[in-house]
Amino acid sequence: MSGLEVQLAAIRAARARIAPHVHVTPVLTSSRLDAQLGARLFFKCENFQKAGAFKARGAFNAVLSLSDEEAAKGVVTHSSGNHAAALSLAARTRGIPAYIVMPTSTVRAKQEAVAAYGGQVTLCAPTLAAREAAAAEIVARTGARMVHPYDDEAVIAGQGTVALELVEQVPDLDVIICPVGGGGLMSGTALAVKGLNLQALVIGAEPAGADDAWRSLDAGKLIPQTDPRTIADGLRASLSPRTFGVMMDHVGGVLTAPEEAIIEATRLIWRILKIVVEPSAAVPLAALLAHRADLPFQRFGLILTGGNVDLDRLPWMG
Amino acid sequence: MSGLEVQLAAIRAARARIAPHVHVTPVLTSSRLDAQLGARLFFKCENFQKAGAFKARGAFNAVLSLSDEEAAKGVVTHSSGNHAAALSLAARTRGIPAYIVMPTSTVRAKQEAVAAYGGQVTLCAPTLAAREAAAAEIVARTGARMVHPYDDEAVIAGQGTVALELVEQVPDLDVIICPVGGGGLMSGTALAVKGLNLQALVIGAEPAGADDAWRSLDAGKLIPQTDPRTIADGLRASLSPRTFGVMMDHVGGVLTAPEEAIIEATRLIWRILKIVVEPSAAVPLAALLAHRADLPFQRFGLILTGGNVDLDRLPWMG
Repeated sequence: MSGLEVQLAAIRAARARIAPHVHVTPVLTSSRLDAQLGARLFFKCENFQKAGAFKARGAFNAVLSLSDEEAAKGVVTHSSGNHAAALSLAARTRGIPAYIVMPTSTVRAKQEAVAAYGGQVTLCAPTLAAREAAAAEIVARTGARMVHPYDDEAVIAGQGTVALELVEQVPDLDVIICPVGGGGLMSGTALAVKGLNLQALVIGAEPAGADDAWRSLDAGKLIPQTDPRTIADGLRASLSPRTFGVMMDHVGGVLTAPEEAIIEATRLIWRILKIVVEPSAAVPLAALLAHRADLPFQRFGLILTGGNVDLDRLPWMG
Repeated sequence: MSGLEVQLAAIRAARARIAPHVHVTPVLTSSRLDAQLGARLFFKCENFQKAGAFKARGAFNAVLSLSDEEAAKGVVTHSSGNHAAALSLAARTRGIPAYIVMPTSTVRAKQEAVAAYGGQVTLCAPTLAAREAAAAEIVARTGARMVHPYDDEAVIAGQGTVALELVEQVPDLDVIICPVGGGGLMSGTALAVKGLNLQALVIGAEPAGADDAWRSLDAGKLIPQTDPRTIADGLRASLSPRTFGVMMDHVGGVLTAPEEAIIEATRLIWRILKIVVEPSAAVPLAALLAHRADLPFQRFGLILTGGNVDLDRLPWMG
């Protein structure tokens, strides 16, 4: 089998493994948004996923892939939020501990979700170094297995199940746009679509204020994100060598969205589609609003990645 | 045929008539809310309906039931919002004018929706007398046909299609709870459920601050709403003799919800179900939160009536 065939088999295995625990999420459409954009838009609603984000897919796949012996010691991760909540839920479902390292800057709704799902939270300073050091200390102390939010094969295979569903629900998409933070969803999406040998272009969308994927693709080498500035708190991470490699091989392009477009798109989705999504989830629509004229396509799949927002502090309320 | 058989036939005819123009809306569930309430809850999502509320069903049925001659002169209504937007959309779809009388107190999002759908708005003082006078003047001047928001057979038949769908989507419901304003949805729901000879109890839910249905049912006579005080702006109207009569014959009871419960339920639906609903739509869940202990049932259908809110002024933001 070729590399892509192996990857597709892993995504299909993930789908079967996680099926009892995650939702097949619906696809929503809006004639008003279609008219506004001059295209057919299909929104894959991972905001309705367990724990409120697509991250449940990768987390369940990683936790359920462990042997009983490995699993018994628990799992650990550092995460700005949705992966942490998802891993806590998956671990609780398997009856094992989840140790979660969170930066103090994490939005409150996401901290509360982790606690609600039984994750054991360790707060740390909001730097990658502090997060990694705190996680390493927990691994040394407990023997727990690190489940990285995106630089992990089982996690990427789980995230790829979003695209498997989407292309069955909506045939003949021209483009699938997914948000890019660390690149786990983008990698899983590209591996699924290209593994299935579909013509659809996979395009990443990221905030202009956290544009490491765009810069890395442009430079042909991995350029880490050092100072992300965006309201899209799920997309502040850097690509890893693994996700960068998938992007170079299988992703058709990366679009950036200015902050104003992200806020506008978030509000538009709430107002027109009547669903709650977090700003990170609105970045594909924001990118499309900003770049529609450059994209000569008609049928767009947009992955709405999550819906965990602090309802007391909405993006458009300064 | 009995009266109920005639009514059911009218609802079925409405369903066929409006099918090309309205959505079959989905039913959402949440294991978290089920656990919190100790019951199975099935939310019928009319917030995803055309123009953002179930009102599209009754409005389309009324507009499409007119003869070409009647229709040519247009339609008129007075409404606090969702019916006005729905009637504007239905009229535009048929290519006829819609004259809309709105009180100046109407929330801005609803005024904007009417304008967006091409309705011709006449503002009036926020009293029933002022609304009726303004509407009568328009009828006299244009010959337009009055389409009352709820005291209208075609409108009630259209609203009854919500329940037809719901009982097909979710069999064996013990109870269906719907919000009660003027009683159009409650009437349509009760006539559909009882016409189908189902065992499900139909229960109305209304704000404690606009409890004319509860008081009327308790007194056995129609007691109009004179001074409604509730955030649920869709539920401030009074029952009509027609909807009161349906309630007396076919509705199992009315529950009231305090304002705090309405706000809590609205927020809960946004936070857990990840959908945007207006406070009026959350009243059935609010009533269930307040009265769960008195309701020895397991399977509840709750009609989420609409999702048109002003996103700059959320109910829980004082």
